[in-house]
Amino acid sequence: MGPDPAVAAVRLAVRRVLADLPAGSMTLVACSGGADSLALAGALAFEAPRAGLQAGGITIDHGLQDGSSARADAVVWTLADLGLDPAGSIAVTVDGEGGTENAARNARYAALDRAAGRLGAAAVLLGHTRDDQAETVLLGLARGSGARSLAGMPTTLRRPTGQGEVLYLRPLLELDRATMRRACLAMGLEPWDDPHNDDPAYTRVRVRHRALPVLEETLGPGVAEALARTARILRDDADALDALAARAYDDLLDEVPDGFVEGGRTVALRVDGLAELHRALRTRVLRMAAVKAGSPPGTLAAVHVDAMDRLVTAWHGQRHVDLPGGLRAFRRYGRLLFGPV
Amino acid sequence: MGPDPAVAAVRLAVRRVLADLPAGSMTLVACSGGADSLALAGALAFEAPRAGLQAGGITIDHGLQDGSSARADAVVWTLADLGLDPAGSIAVTVDGEGGTENAARNARYAALDRAAGRLGAAAVLLGHTRDDQAETVLLGLARGSGARSLAGMPTTLRRPTGQGEVLYLRPLLELDRATMRRACLAMGLEPWDDPHNDDPAYTRVRVRHRALPVLEETLGPGVAEALARTARILRDDADALDALAARAYDDLLDEVPDGFVEGGRTVALRVDGLAELHRALRTRVLRMAAVKAGSPPGTLAAVHVDAMDRLVTAWHGQRHVDLPGGLRAFRRYGRLLFGPV
Repeated sequence: MGPDPAVAAVRLAVRRVLADLPAGSMTLVACSGGADSLALAGALAFEAPRAGLQAGGITIDHGLQDGSSARADAVVWTLADLGLDPAGSIAVTVDGEGGTENAARNARYAALDRAAGRLGAAAVLLGHTRDDQAETVLLGLARGSGARSLAGMPTTLRRPTGQGEVLYLRPLLELDRATMRRACLAMGLEPWDDPHNDDPAYTRVRVRHRALPVLEETLGPGVAEALARTARILRDDADALDALAARAYDDLLDEVPDGFVEGGRTVALRVDGLAELHRALRTRVLRMAAVKAGSPPGTLAAVHVDAMDRLVTAWHGQRHVDLPGGLRAFRRYGRLLFGPV
Repeated sequence: MGPDPAVAAVRLAVRRVLADLPAGSMTLVACSGGADSLALAGALAFEAPRAGLQAGGITIDHGLQDGSSARADAVVWTLADLGLDPAGSIAVTVDGEGGTENAARNARYAALDRAAGRLGAAAVLLGHTRDDQAETVLLGLARGSGARSLAGMPTTLRRPTGQGEVLYLRPLLELDRATMRRACLAMGLEPWDDPHNDDPAYTRVRVRHRALPVLEETLGPGVAEALARTARILRDDADALDALAARAYDDLLDEVPDGFVEGGRTVALRVDGLAELHRALRTRVLRMAAVKAGSPPGTLAAVHVDAMDRLVTAWHGQRHVDLPGGLRAFRRYGRLLFGPV
C-alpha cells in the first residue's frame, strides 16, 4: 500500500524541485508550524535523503504574540523529530514599518537569508499553496496596476544578499490548503493554527474567509485554481513585455541635447521610435525612462503614464508632464526628455 | 448655471467619441430603457446636432418577458421624445443556443448590425459602464485563461457583416452606474429596471449584487475602478503580445518535410527559433500553429499548450502531444509539426 494520496502529492511536488539541486547540498524548509509548511517539512524530511541531499528546518519567532517563543520551541522539536538537521528557531524584531504584515515578512526573509547563508543552503523551501496564490492575485487586483500586480508569487525567487543570493522555492503553488491538512493528518503531524490567520483586521484574512468563498459561490467552483493559473500566465506575459521594453528602451536612447543636461540624470528617447511601439511596450518604456531619470517607481501612476503617452501619440504642442520626484517629461527636437524641473 | 455634473459627464464622454465621426453621418444608440443606455440616449440627442451629426435610437425587443413589446414601444416613445430620428424597435427571436444570455446577445447584435447597415450609420453607441466592465473582468477571471479573458469589453469594436462592418463604441466605460442614474433623474428620464437584472439565476447578476460588493468590503473601495483599469492595461498587453506572436509565427514557419503533408494543413515551425522566444510569445505561437492546423480554438486548454511547450523546452524524446480536433504535435528534424493523426 502506498502513502496517502495527499502525502504522495506533497512528496512529488518536493521531489520535483529537489531534482534540480546540487548533490549533497543542504536544503532548508521555512516552517511556521501551520499545516502548509508542516506538510512541506514532512515531505522534505522524507525526500531529501532519497535525493542525496541534506535537509534542515527553520522556524521564525516574530515575537508578536504571547508565548510565541514556546511555540517556536515546539515547532523546532517537531522539525527535529522529522529528522531535519539542523532544526532551529530564529527570533526577529518586527518594527511595524509599512504595516505589521509587511514588516513581519521583511524580518522573516532577512532572517532566512542569513540562515541560508550561514548554512550554505542551496535552497529554502516555502509552503505557499494555490490558495495563498489566489489570495495574492485578488490583493493585486485591488491595485489595478496590470499584469505584474496580478502575477502572484513566483515559484522560484533569487534574493540578492550581501554574500551572493539565496534561492527560494515554492513547490506547493499547484496544491491546495485542504491537501496540506490531509497530508499532516496522514503523517501524524499536528498543525498549529495561528490566530492571526483568523483576524479580520488583516486584508488577506478577509480575502481568504470572505471574498474567495463568495467568488466560489457566484462564479462556481475552481476560482482559486483559475486565479493561480491567471498568475502563472500573466507572470510570463509581464516577463516578456518587460524584457522587450528594456530592449526597446536601449534602442531608443538618444543623446541629451545641449542645455538639458543639468542634474546629469536626464534621459532622451527618440519620439519616432516610441510612436512605432505597441502601446503596452511604449507605456513600459516611458515608465522606465521616468524611473531612470529619478522618479520613485512606486509613485508613478496610470495618469502620469497616460499623459507621457499623449506627448507621443496625441501631440498638439503640450508643455510638459509633471512627474513624481520633481521631474518632468517634455518633447523637444524629436525627442522625449525626462529630467529635473 | 451649467447642467448637472452627472449629465455633464455623460455628455462629455459622448462628445469625445462623436468628434471622430464623419460630418453629417448618422449615429445610433442602442437603448434598453435602463438607466445606462437611457442616459446615453439623452446625451446623444443633445450632442449630435451640436457636432453636426444625425442621431437615431433603436431598442431591441427580445420577446423573453410578458409585455416586452409594450415595453419596447414605451422606449421608442422616449427616444422619439428626445428628438432621436429614427426611433424604432426591432423584435428578435432568442433561440437559447449557448445559454439565454449568449443567445440574446447574439440576436441583439445581429439586429443592430442590420439596422446600422440599413440606415448607413457611422457608429452604434452602447451604454456599458465601468461597473459592467468590472463584472466582465470578474467573469473572465473565473476562466483563468490569461490577459485576453481579463481584457473586458473594448471601447471600440468593428463587427464585420455581410456588407462591410459596423462600428460599435462604448463611451461610458470610464463612468459608473450611479452617475447614469443621477443623469437620468436630472434629464427627467425615467429608467426601466429590467427584472432580469435582479435574477440570481444569471452569473452576471450574482457578480453584480454579491461578488463585487463583498470585494469592495474586503479590499476597500475602488475595486470596480481597479478592475476596469486592469482590463484596459491587459487589453494593451494582449494586443501587443498577439501581434508580436503573429510576427514570430511567420518568421518561424518552415517547409513541411516530405511524408508529413497529408491533409494539407500540416504546419511546421523551427524548434531553434521557438526555443529563443519568451515563454509568453512561444505559448501564443504554439497555440496559433495548432489552430492553423485545424484545432478548434475554444478547445485548446493550458494542459495542451504546456505539453507542446515541453516538446521545445524539455525535450527528452517524447512521442507526440494529442490535440483537440484529431491533431497531434510532434518534433522531427529540428521542427515542431502540427498535423492530423
